[in-house]
Amino acid sequence: MRIIKVTVTPIAIPDVPLANLKGVHQSVFLRSVIELETDTGLVGLGETYGARRTLEGLQKVAAALEGLDPYDLHDLRRRIETALPDGGGINAPTALTDHKLVDVVYSAYEIPCLDLRGKEVGRPLHDLLGGAVRKTIPFGGYLFYKFAKQDLSFGPDIMGEVMTPDVLVEQARTFHAEYGFQSWKLKGGVLEPELEIETMLKLREAFPGHGLRIDPMGAWTVPTALKVVRRLEGVLEYLEDPCKGMEGMAELSAQIDMPLATNLVVVEFEQVIEAARKDAVQIILSDHHYWRGATGAIHLGEICRAAGMGVSMHSNSHLGISLAAMCHVAAATPNLTYACDTHYPWTTKEIVKGGRPVFRDGAVQVPEGPGLGVELDREALAELHALYNQAMVADRNDTDEMLKYRPDFVRKVPRW
Amino acid sequence: MRIIKVTVTPIAIPDVPLANLKGVHQSVFLRSVIELETDTGLVGLGETYGARRTLEGLQKVAAALEGLDPYDLHDLRRRIETALPDGGGINAPTALTDHKLVDVVYSAYEIPCLDLRGKEVGRPLHDLLGGAVRKTIPFGGYLFYKFAKQDLSFGPDIMGEVMTPDVLVEQARTFHAEYGFQSWKLKGGVLEPELEIETMLKLREAFPGHGLRIDPMGAWTVPTALKVVRRLEGVLEYLEDPCKGMEGMAELSAQIDMPLATNLVVVEFEQVIEAARKDAVQIILSDHHYWRGATGAIHLGEICRAAGMGVSMHSNSHLGISLAAMCHVAAATPNLTYACDTHYPWTTKEIVKGGRPVFRDGAVQVPEGPGLGVELDREALAELHALYNQAMVADRNDTDEMLKYRPDFVRKVPRW
Repeated sequence: MRIIKVTVTPIAIPDVPLANLKGVHQSVFLRSVIELETDTGLVGLGETYGARRTLEGLQKVAAALEGLDPYDLHDLRRRIETALPDGGGINAPTALTDHKLVDVVYSAYEIPCLDLRGKEVGRPLHDLLGGAVRKTIPFGGYLFYKFAKQDLSFGPDIMGEVMTPDVLVEQARTFHAEYGFQSWKLKGGVLEPELEIETMLKLREAFPGHGLRIDPMGAWTVPTALKVVRRLEGVLEYLEDPCKGMEGMAELSAQIDMPLATNLVVVEFEQVIEAARKDAVQIILSDHHYWRGATGAIHLGEICRAAGMGVSMHSNSHLGISLAAMCHVAAATPNLTYACDTHYPWTTKEIVKGGRPVFRDGAVQVPEGPGLGVELDREALAELHALYNQAMVADRNDTDEMLKYRPDFVRKVPRW
Repeated sequence: MRIIKVTVTPIAIPDVPLANLKGVHQSVFLRSVIELETDTGLVGLGETYGARRTLEGLQKVAAALEGLDPYDLHDLRRRIETALPDGGGINAPTALTDHKLVDVVYSAYEIPCLDLRGKEVGRPLHDLLGGAVRKTIPFGGYLFYKFAKQDLSFGPDIMGEVMTPDVLVEQARTFHAEYGFQSWKLKGGVLEPELEIETMLKLREAFPGHGLRIDPMGAWTVPTALKVVRRLEGVLEYLEDPCKGMEGMAELSAQIDMPLATNLVVVEFEQVIEAARKDAVQIILSDHHYWRGATGAIHLGEICRAAGMGVSMHSNSHLGISLAAMCHVAAATPNLTYACDTHYPWTTKEIVKGGRPVFRDGAVQVPEGPGLGVELDREALAELHALYNQAMVADRNDTDEMLKYRPDFVRKVPRW
């Protein structure tokens, strides 16, 4: 089985103005859809980031994949490293962390290779990762402060303005009615810490017994984070990236019992060891889009187990190919014991056949078909590719977008 | 594909009196050969330790494997943990390190599961581990001080008494002529450190440019090890387990530049993190027989890469099924950059069809057939199983065996 054709299709998906520390989501988010075709007539699918540098990386590598054996992931890595000799950071300057282009591109092509292998042998992808320890994958409701959408040219708003604790709780109630989530994550770092504490306390009241988390993306100084921890002791299951950098996290961690999680200060395997040495965090967020694919995410789980750390799962805005891959990874990672993050409720589009998957009590069943277990809906793909060409957005820039809503906005980390 | 039959066959293989810190090899060494048969008519092979506790563990678990899907390694683990609720140490009190029974039994059954998967899909086992970064696997010549064999009832001696530096160098020359090894490991901790230093210096003279290592199995105090390091600076590629325990290794490591390797103080994943925290060792010896099988050995490689450690490969006395598995693991572990250990030249028997593999320049070609790429020679297996019944040796005990050669022998760690 050899790769004979690689297709990378950039797409844009209508988004809504979800706020975070660095700004606000643009009117569309970008993804790339990958198809690897083999000489045996199979097609392997993948989905990853769609911003300029990722897209260019994917396209540069595409030509180098002809003849690749989808089993030979070491060869995949070599080809990518050769095609991208300067395999450094991919993110825009406004991002809070930077991923290595080679890791992101490797991850993007690794999933379709596994999809092909699963299809060839008639096995779901999780079987190639050691089997499923769970087949029902719990997700958490991802809550955002947000603006009312101004520019409706690419799609409608969802739930209008959400800028107070009470309205945020209403947002959660709406999602709970539709998806049944049993745990909740708030994207923090947007309002004054006092208001975000109030939001968490009101969520606790509204959903007794549910898991609660907040992720201010490094918005708080260590003293501010300490105050928040004191107020939310016993309320949060973990606190995600309260402070900037490994040192800030370690300084806070030394003073508290509440577990700290991260997807900002630990994004490479070497950093897991560093974090263990410094006891800077207790939970690492997995994400097959940059942790070297599904096999890399499984390695991450093993390293975390060895280091006595927990595993949770990170999400960016995504569609159903990514969702399927997330489910397979979560199914095969024994110590991924927290509900996974997902932006999924914030979009209404889908590119896999059969449309949007069913969430029951906040959980999705891992697909049982061969490989990823999803098929591409080509009409939907064409529609979103047309939107990509129409939208003329090539990069994510939450900070510039924020200026449309708050002209005096200044990006600042930490802010409080 | 489901397991319908499990066969565990204990065998004994003629051995010769190879000396080490804790004693000397008995007249036979023990192995277990594992066959997993599926409802699709395939048979997966494995080979592991044959001493009493391992054998009992394998047999207790065997009945629990009916219906196992060979893809579901998590289920394999669960079944083993259930069947062996007291899954603790397996080794005799004279051993220097102890492995967890559940890890050893899991490892023993994981390889035949991968063999089955490879056979089903027509792929060599290394393809299930991410592909081969090398197909020619270099092994090191494993040199031992030894006695002339007294009891020849189960097989002849090899090379008579070897108890001086000069005769040890002759041993290496003999192996070099037959196998072409390009690097050498001496099992140390047997003679006075001064004589072992002399041996290494004479090996350096005899084989300029070859990699050299010595493994005294914790025989030296930190001051003794320091003296040895000063004398062998620039001579050894690494020094294996000079001192006892993680603390001893860390104390030595802090004072020297020479890399330290271990298969004694790091035998579980948690200990890799501890060793990284303490900078106790720089190279971990991999071994699919206890590092949770081939997939575990691949995880070990990833953890070592993250921790900035190197990887080499450990060996016990073994036959061709283990050798094939070692080759597949070595092929798929990018940072396994040292020649692998092997006891293989010290036995003359084989249980795989086609007999003993060819070593060229000390290296073996990784088998390219499906799965492990080896088939069982049932006649040879029956012969060695008969020897097992005849030999009446159920446990390894190098210390008692030593008393036959040196009645005043007292086991002592460290000795010098």
